[in-house]
Amino acid sequence: MIVIKIGGSRGINMDYVCDDAAELYKAGQKIILVHGAGNEANELGEKVGYPAKHVTSPQGFSWRYTDRQTLEIYTMAAVGKINTFLVEALQKRGVNALGLSGVSGRVMEGTRKDAVRIIEGGKQRILRDDYTGRVEKVNAELLRALLDMNYLPVIAPLAISYQGDAMNVDGDRAAAMIAGAVNVEQLIILTNVVGLMKNFPDEASLITHIDKNKVEASIDFAEGRMKKKVLGASEALNLGVAQVVFADGRVEHPIQNALAGKGTVIG
Amino acid sequence: MIVIKIGGSRGINMDYVCDDAAELYKAGQKIILVHGAGNEANELGEKVGYPAKHVTSPQGFSWRYTDRQTLEIYTMAAVGKINTFLVEALQKRGVNALGLSGVSGRVMEGTRKDAVRIIEGGKQRILRDDYTGRVEKVNAELLRALLDMNYLPVIAPLAISYQGDAMNVDGDRAAAMIAGAVNVEQLIILTNVVGLMKNFPDEASLITHIDKNKVEASIDFAEGRMKKKVLGASEALNLGVAQVVFADGRVEHPIQNALAGKGTVIG
Repeated sequence: MIVIKIGGSRGINMDYVCDDAAELYKAGQKIILVHGAGNEANELGEKVGYPAKHVTSPQGFSWRYTDRQTLEIYTMAAVGKINTFLVEALQKRGVNALGLSGVSGRVMEGTRKDAVRIIEGGKQRILRDDYTGRVEKVNAELLRALLDMNYLPVIAPLAISYQGDAMNVDGDRAAAMIAGAVNVEQLIILTNVVGLMKNFPDEASLITHIDKNKVEASIDFAEGRMKKKVLGASEALNLGVAQVVFADGRVEHPIQNALAGKGTVIG
Repeated sequence: MIVIKIGGSRGINMDYVCDDAAELYKAGQKIILVHGAGNEANELGEKVGYPAKHVTSPQGFSWRYTDRQTLEIYTMAAVGKINTFLVEALQKRGVNALGLSGVSGRVMEGTRKDAVRIIEGGKQRILRDDYTGRVEKVNAELLRALLDMNYLPVIAPLAISYQGDAMNVDGDRAAAMIAGAVNVEQLIILTNVVGLMKNFPDEASLITHIDKNKVEASIDFAEGRMKKKVLGASEALNLGVAQVVFADGRVEHPIQNALAGKGTVIG
């Protein structure tokens, strides 16, 4: 059984990903797909005249500020567009894909950051209307039941808070929590680069293997978005996932490549 | 077990509907909710500068012309916004709701009208890029499995064609097909009026009962959108549903009212 995370950034070839997932599914591989939404949500925000805004914590972490209107835009992009058409693309290839947001059936549950400190114009202030959260629990029973019925679950990066609020969550860390909860052997994180590079963006500096005990140290190499992916990898390993692979989602057979050890193998 | 269809038009009080569904769910009633999307899809179309367009067949039937871009807008409104936030509203009330579009797990399957004749400016022409269809098959096995696990399925009005295309479908007729497939006793259609009226909009002319053998004749009384609802009712009865109720979705306890026989009872 494998969990595959497909990044929300441009460059990943979704046809290749779906072709490869279909091949593996037909060969009997159990797969859960988790996708991102960042890019589509940004584009939709621009289109409807409510562009995304990012905020930064005093510790230097940055995330999408998700007030109620942004949450609507985010769910329209993530659940409405990306999830539905990914399910359609897989169904067209003979895969019985089934789309779910983490809100449905409490697939992903966690704490909403309902009062967070941010830095704005050099000053600290508290945000209270942010619908961003962190996945802490996964409904593994539902996912296993769907896999047993031969469905391929396609999960959108939203979760539900303990109080019942829908929240925007980080897709990489969501995929890590799911991989841990359903006890998969491998978590494959497809991106628009070859893997983790020692000197980004020099592809010749690809790190082909990282020992599971040295993952946290590799956060130093990781640039930008890759930092959260490394954090996700670390969480997945801590939850008992044997191997995490950062692999290239731009090429043919991206999943089979990852399974064959191409990219950055952590574990 | 009951199937409840919530109209996509303005006026229905979603808080009342969710409160009532939660009460019944907690009392052990098995429920499937099917919702509309018309109004939200129209609003989103305006917002993104691609307003909905309706077309008319030579026989006088009218529907939303759904080219690929309209389909995207429709799924964003139907699956992304309405479905997700309906699931959230039910979850907030302690109901383990689970949202699905008909594309997921082939919940609703049917024929796409991929070449349809329309009347435009008095002339006939053929439309080939329309993603509208008709539900012919329902994945009752999946819905029953979810109900057995105590989920409340919330279904968005999309289906998948036999070729794997996502399609916009009529929500009332979709609800009828679902009600027939899972063998429910009652299909409740909540609208923003008191029920079927002999002289619309005179509420005093409410028709309280229609014999199941006389449904088709009552299409003559039905105005506008109500025609498709009567057609849905007729289909549900033909599929073995014992009773269809058109009930008022604007008032408190709209579902319990319908179960108590308020509105137009057909059967």
